[in-house]
Amino acid sequence: MVDLNCDLGESFGRYTLGDDEAVMAQVTSVNVACGLHAGDPLVMARTVRLAGRMNVALGAHPGYPDLQGFGRRVMDLPLDEAEAFVIYQLGALEAFARVEGVELRHVKPHGAMYNQASKDDRLALALARAVKRFDPQLILVGLAGSALIRAGQEVGLRVAEEGFPDRAYTPDGQLRPRKEPGALLTDPAEICAQAVRLAQAGMDTLCLHGDEPGAADHAAQVRRTLEAAGIPVKPLVLFIP
Amino acid sequence: MVDLNCDLGESFGRYTLGDDEAVMAQVTSVNVACGLHAGDPLVMARTVRLAGRMNVALGAHPGYPDLQGFGRRVMDLPLDEAEAFVIYQLGALEAFARVEGVELRHVKPHGAMYNQASKDDRLALALARAVKRFDPQLILVGLAGSALIRAGQEVGLRVAEEGFPDRAYTPDGQLRPRKEPGALLTDPAEICAQAVRLAQAGMDTLCLHGDEPGAADHAAQVRRTLEAAGIPVKPLVLFIP
Amino acid sequence: MVDLNCDLGESFGRYTLGDDEAVMAQVTSVNVACGLHAGDPLVMARTVRLAGRMNVALGAHPGYPDLQGFGRRVMDLPLDEAEAFVIYQLGALEAFARVEGVELRHVKPHGAMYNQASKDDRLALALARAVKRFDPQLILVGLAGSALIRAGQEVGLRVAEEGFPDRAYTPDGQLRPRKEPGALLTDPAEICAQAVRLAQAGMDTLCLHGDEPGAADHAAQVRRTLEAAGIPVKPLVLFIP
Amino acid sequence: MVDLNCDLGESFGRYTLGDDEAVMAQVTSVNVACGLHAGDPLVMARTVRLAGRMNVALGAHPGYPDLQGFGRRVMDLPLDEAEAFVIYQLGALEAFARVEGVELRHVKPHGAMYNQASKDDRLALALARAVKRFDPQLILVGLAGSALIRAGQEVGLRVAEEGFPDRAYTPDGQLRPRKEPGALLTDPAEICAQAVRLAQAGMDTLCLHGDEPGAADHAAQVRRTLEAAGIPVKPLVLFIP
Repeated sequence: MVDLNCDLGESFGRYTLGDDEAVMAQVTSVNVACGLHAGDPLVMARTVRLAGRMNVALGAHPGYPDLQGFGRRVMDLPLDEAEAFVIYQLGALEAFARVEGVELRHVKPHGAMYNQASKDDRLALALARAVKRFDPQLILVGLAGSALIRAGQEVGLRVAEEGFPDRAYTPDGQLRPRKEPGALLTDPAEICAQAVRLAQAGMDTLCLHGDEPGAADHAAQVRRTLEAAGIPVKPLVLFIP
Repeated sequence: MVDLNCDLGESFGRYTLGDDEAVMAQVTSVNVACGLHAGDPLVMARTVRLAGRMNVALGAHPGYPDLQGFGRRVMDLPLDEAEAFVIYQLGALEAFARVEGVELRHVKPHGAMYNQASKDDRLALALARAVKRFDPQLILVGLAGSALIRAGQEVGLRVAEEGFPDRAYTPDGQLRPRKEPGALLTDPAEICAQAVRLAQAGMDTLCLHGDEPGAADHAAQVRRTLEAAGIPVKPLVLFIP
Repeated sequence: MVDLNCDLGESFGRYTLGDDEAVMAQVTSVNVACGLHAGDPLVMARTVRLAGRMNVALGAHPGYPDLQGFGRRVMDLPLDEAEAFVIYQLGALEAFARVEGVELRHVKPHGAMYNQASKDDRLALALARAVKRFDPQLILVGLAGSALIRAGQEVGLRVAEEGFPDRAYTPDGQLRPRKEPGALLTDPAEICAQAVRLAQAGMDTLCLHGDEPGAADHAAQVRRTLEAAGIPVKPLVLFIP
Repeated sequence: MVDLNCDLGESFGRYTLGDDEAVMAQVTSVNVACGLHAGDPLVMARTVRLAGRMNVALGAHPGYPDLQGFGRRVMDLPLDEAEAFVIYQLGALEAFARVEGVELRHVKPHGAMYNQASKDDRLALALARAVKRFDPQLILVGLAGSALIRAGQEVGLRVAEEGFPDRAYTPDGQLRPRKEPGALLTDPAEICAQAVRLAQAGMDTLCLHGDEPGAADHAAQVRRTLEAAGIPVKPLVLFIP
């Protein structure tokens, strides 16, 4: 059994990114930007409402406060500040969940925050603590086998190990950095095959990208391939203990 | 009976504003900036923790997204966007209240948002709706006699009518704009006298400013003057029905 | 004789807006965002380089400091601050012109700044003064017949009167606000006809929009229609005295 | 002979930092923030005007786009983006120099940009190239013996080697990071002694901090100590060949 998740709600003001509605029809979980690396309050309101209507599991996607860099630039926040930035974003997104009558289910750090927390135990613990203090029922999503997964377990959160069907991995199981050549797989057949492989290897959730043309079609193809391989696609809450 | 409130938590990164701890010792309620016109996540965490320790009533102080203008510049947000900006900020601040074990009690819009909502019925209703949808137990603080107070009553919120001991009023009960000469009273005796007058006229809460040198002393003096005049100083929750 | 201009360089970080290269092939002048309402330093560098390579007249497009609102929200800046914000943006853009060996030719305020300066004589004069102080050779582009045009003339700048083929006008010659129904003309034939009408009425420059799908095709069609009507399309510097 | 410089113009909107006028009376050069890590257009206009009136050499102090972190957080900008961010800020500051009739003399990167460019040859070269392309007459100020000084020499700029009287050095001549204990010297006698030592060791310019209480007095004391030791205090342009 595997969950399919997608980063959404990344539009900002005049700037539109992704076709959120089409992609939501294909996934079981969405990670919604919280206004610091992408998204704004109106975008958040609309995205949460849409998630409720389309019945996908709602998650927060907190990131570094760097809109111009889309949260992809490494920033060295002190740990108490990193924790505060996560609490801030969780609260902001949960507010929209509350007013729209949707439940917040999981948290997945974004971009450079996600990558740094995969390797840096102290940052990972700060983020996990932020989530635990805010709501101990939330599922923490992190790179499979990473420091963030270990930190989530350490503080007593439920965790979900994530794989990336369309990203190349380094031999030690890290994501190959985006700026390196070959970091992004583009052949749909290869992406589908990697999705099946990752699910069979025990990943809890697979991340599909929503901001490229054809994203919804690609997501549908991955989903069909998984189901054809006998792997049911279900939201995390149904199978994370 | 009257509440004394102060706008606090307005520091930002390297920039420190006000001596929050000294002022908190003199007031019964604080309105904490939520990161869009002032404040940042770490400042919010510290200010909420301090409010809990010093046992003052915690309120949110949402404002326009305009850090450089300190939320004091008129902005014409569409109503759904104004509503979303308030929900966002309420959630962000409430997150810190939750993790620090402090209760969020009231909401008071900041700066230009406060002023515009004093006169503009449609904006006032959008803000009141945002508060009501987020948490119907919150008390909405607005300029006495203003559109915001009417809107709060209309949506079924408890409201608190606010007066300003150190601001000049126009004949029709509006605040004289800050940029006009004489807008700020500076004589302590005059400020204390206006505080007593406003409390006797039925104001629920009086706003003291915390960002000037000597702010804590001025607040203490106003408090003593009120008590000497037989007006108990108490937090809103104790007397707003 | 008429100039065709377009607002470009409005991408920001991860967010791409418009197909600048395709549109540049059809116009004679471009107005480049300066990083406060849209654009960022890397986008500015690339857009200025492209303008040089494609041999279109380069202009600055300063706006209000409001990225989330795309500079379209009214802001009430004090006059000295409005002047400083324009000088800041002119300098930032001119720096890229200088390092790329391209000449800065004109200035056109963006969005709400443009609209407010069309009606508000004091703001118009502050903006015109900023341009004059920065570089008295620059041409100031403003709404035909507006306060901004008068202010430019008053401070001794060359001015260019602008018309909008795809925007509806109010009876008194103002642009119909974007949020009103019918504010944007969408029928290509109607847009072309209005372009010819405006040029014949003596407009110096016509603004074409570059951020919609098909923008380059529409621009080409307007250009052909003008030339077919015997109206040469030339950059402002060739005919503004 | 040695120059005394200070980072100024770091106020932002409602937030005031430092007593710029008092400090300017004691130094020979000022480095003015350019709006991305500190400063805003109105602050820049006023600071440049003040520098002209007080006859101190004007420099630009470009930093990372991180107001909340005051430009002190490491950010990993791509090199072309780092270069563009410097050009942007040089242009913005030079615009105010131009309209105020003051000459821009030098450039000194701020905070984390300064520190990273002290050690990272590729970043140092990108920044030096930005300065050279913008104006080859500018003097590039960098940490004595650093990669930035070498990069400036490599591209053919005049350079000034800088020392910090009030900062502890590591044995290899780097500044001890601010967050480490003992990073800041606080004993005035010790600071004055280190100032003399650094000047005698051949530093071209010494950085004094302007944002602490008593900053102007400390600067005056350093200046008197230098002069008493027979070291004239003069602006860089008078002695950098």
